[in-house]
Amino acid sequence: MQIIHVKTKSRPSTVYCGAGAAEKLSSVLSGKDVFVLTDSNVSALYRDFIAEKFAGATVCVIPAGERYKNKNTLFFALEAMMRARLNRKSCLVALGGGVTGDLGGLAASLYMRGIEAVQVPTTLLAQVDSSVGGKTAIDHGGVKNVIGTFWQPEYVVCDPLFLRTLPSREIKCGLGEILKTALLDRDIFDKIFQNKGRLRDFSFLEEITADCVRFKAGVVAADETEKSGVRKSLNMGHTTGHALELHYGRRSHGEYVLIGIWAESFIAEREGVCSAEYAARVRGLVSLAEKRIPHFDGVQEAAKAALLDKKNGRKDSVSMILPKAVGEYAELSLPAEKYAAYLEEIFGGNA
Amino acid sequence: MQIIHVKTKSRPSTVYCGAGAAEKLSSVLSGKDVFVLTDSNVSALYRDFIAEKFAGATVCVIPAGERYKNKNTLFFALEAMMRARLNRKSCLVALGGGVTGDLGGLAASLYMRGIEAVQVPTTLLAQVDSSVGGKTAIDHGGVKNVIGTFWQPEYVVCDPLFLRTLPSREIKCGLGEILKTALLDRDIFDKIFQNKGRLRDFSFLEEITADCVRFKAGVVAADETEKSGVRKSLNMGHTTGHALELHYGRRSHGEYVLIGIWAESFIAEREGVCSAEYAARVRGLVSLAEKRIPHFDGVQEAAKAALLDKKNGRKDSVSMILPKAVGEYAELSLPAEKYAAYLEEIFGGNA
Repeated sequence: MQIIHVKTKSRPSTVYCGAGAAEKLSSVLSGKDVFVLTDSNVSALYRDFIAEKFAGATVCVIPAGERYKNKNTLFFALEAMMRARLNRKSCLVALGGGVTGDLGGLAASLYMRGIEAVQVPTTLLAQVDSSVGGKTAIDHGGVKNVIGTFWQPEYVVCDPLFLRTLPSREIKCGLGEILKTALLDRDIFDKIFQNKGRLRDFSFLEEITADCVRFKAGVVAADETEKSGVRKSLNMGHTTGHALELHYGRRSHGEYVLIGIWAESFIAEREGVCSAEYAARVRGLVSLAEKRIPHFDGVQEAAKAALLDKKNGRKDSVSMILPKAVGEYAELSLPAEKYAAYLEEIFGGNA
Repeated sequence: MQIIHVKTKSRPSTVYCGAGAAEKLSSVLSGKDVFVLTDSNVSALYRDFIAEKFAGATVCVIPAGERYKNKNTLFFALEAMMRARLNRKSCLVALGGGVTGDLGGLAASLYMRGIEAVQVPTTLLAQVDSSVGGKTAIDHGGVKNVIGTFWQPEYVVCDPLFLRTLPSREIKCGLGEILKTALLDRDIFDKIFQNKGRLRDFSFLEEITADCVRFKAGVVAADETEKSGVRKSLNMGHTTGHALELHYGRRSHGEYVLIGIWAESFIAEREGVCSAEYAARVRGLVSLAEKRIPHFDGVQEAAKAALLDKKNGRKDSVSMILPKAVGEYAELSLPAEKYAAYLEEIFGGNA
């Protein structure tokens, strides 16, 4: 197990990462008034774990799935916190995937203007990415993560024990964020290619998770609230990924990130941000996790969803983070029509 | 006009305070994409002001009144922000009293994980207290301010021009927070007694507003998120005030603060926190603004509302900030039954 510190201005955060991390929960929560937020899948799979690790805590179960990452679930959780009579010294544990972590973190940041949060991510995607760095959110009005806060968890407990119950599709989702990180960090990039046959081995995933968390900790410490721009780099592939996710649904966030990286590699190449050779390497990286990029009908409509992206500085343009070279990125803003034309070309059958 | 800096860790805030402050709006908002949140009273009274100062801005009008400081109004505002296609560089102006400022600040802190907020308080209470310091909130489930954030406004514009349209009751409300501040600061305490015949003069109110803002700026800079405890002192009179407000309604927040200070002066005396002489001076101060303290029937029930107060460290006790001596305070926690017995004694006709 590794201990990684996220040194942010607002509040330092400690990540326990690796086998045995969950053993830290007893000391982390010792003497605290604990409220556990989890979802229907996790509560069913980890009934004994919850009873043992969170004895005496109030457990609040929300329905599983991205479509419940909304206002109603947020207030369901907040009202359960009120009924449990939590006070400012209480602690909310978010035990679950990205939805539970994002929504639980938001609830913790809002209750009495903020109580302590502990993230216990149970999916690969949440372990390598969303549980670290303090971004919290719900979706609203058809826009992803449009309502949220920055609220650093006191502790993040990333234990690979949870990976054993994940469906293989969830592993692919996590690989989406891992491969994105590889594009931003040369060491992780090299490690991925050197271990491309082991990408689904638990031992490799445990190792690469810690690498990704350490990389993200550095980015978050440098730019906690995405002001200087460094943190924006973590949104590589997300502009197109989010737009497709909003418009077409069905696939998961991590899958759309893979598709987004794949699509944006073409844009990066055509806009002269990266070489044709590097763009092909990026697509080669994506193919390690996602072999078949789907065809999308009516992608011009999906392009409009990208106009709602939070990174956009203007109302009629679409900003994205493009791969430039190994470990390097560039931010590019395109007029909305040009971006839509690219998507049509890429997904309309010509790519 | 005075310029007062609130030097918080999260984000420094600049307060323009006094006649002419509103003239600063044009430079403060220059080049920004502006969204104005205001209420039905203010929008009717200041139609021309809004048209002139916020030309080109989207104006969102919420219903006036504390009972609208709720989830539905918050999402009404957030959805209007989405329709206006605000982005991360946009700026929300909260033009109104405490409800507009608290709810508008919360909306600004949540939209895309936080956009710039400018507070333009139009009531005396909001000018001397709630607009400064970054506390945002809505009420929920019968608990005041239970959902909120700390979100410092970039600017606060306190212009006495707005005081001229306030009903006299609103002046009394503002005096509630001014007199509370007097108990925490000797200079303000002395100034109040030296000017007790001028408490409703606009020239005096302009001067004392700046004093109160400067005092609060110091407290907020020392303890932005109420962690070390200094900021808790600003809640003097509020434990009982909030409990009565929640249970009985009708009167305004500022009036209940006055009643709360009055009631808690008895508790401070009986608990040996202050001398009988000082407790009488505290009540003398309250009487400058509020001559008639009402009788409350069934106050034991109201006492239960105090158990929901955010300051409480335990579920079966009630914490309050009591006057100790001029400029001094003490935090005291009482068992719930003892607190209820005090309220019964004070408001049941024996005081």
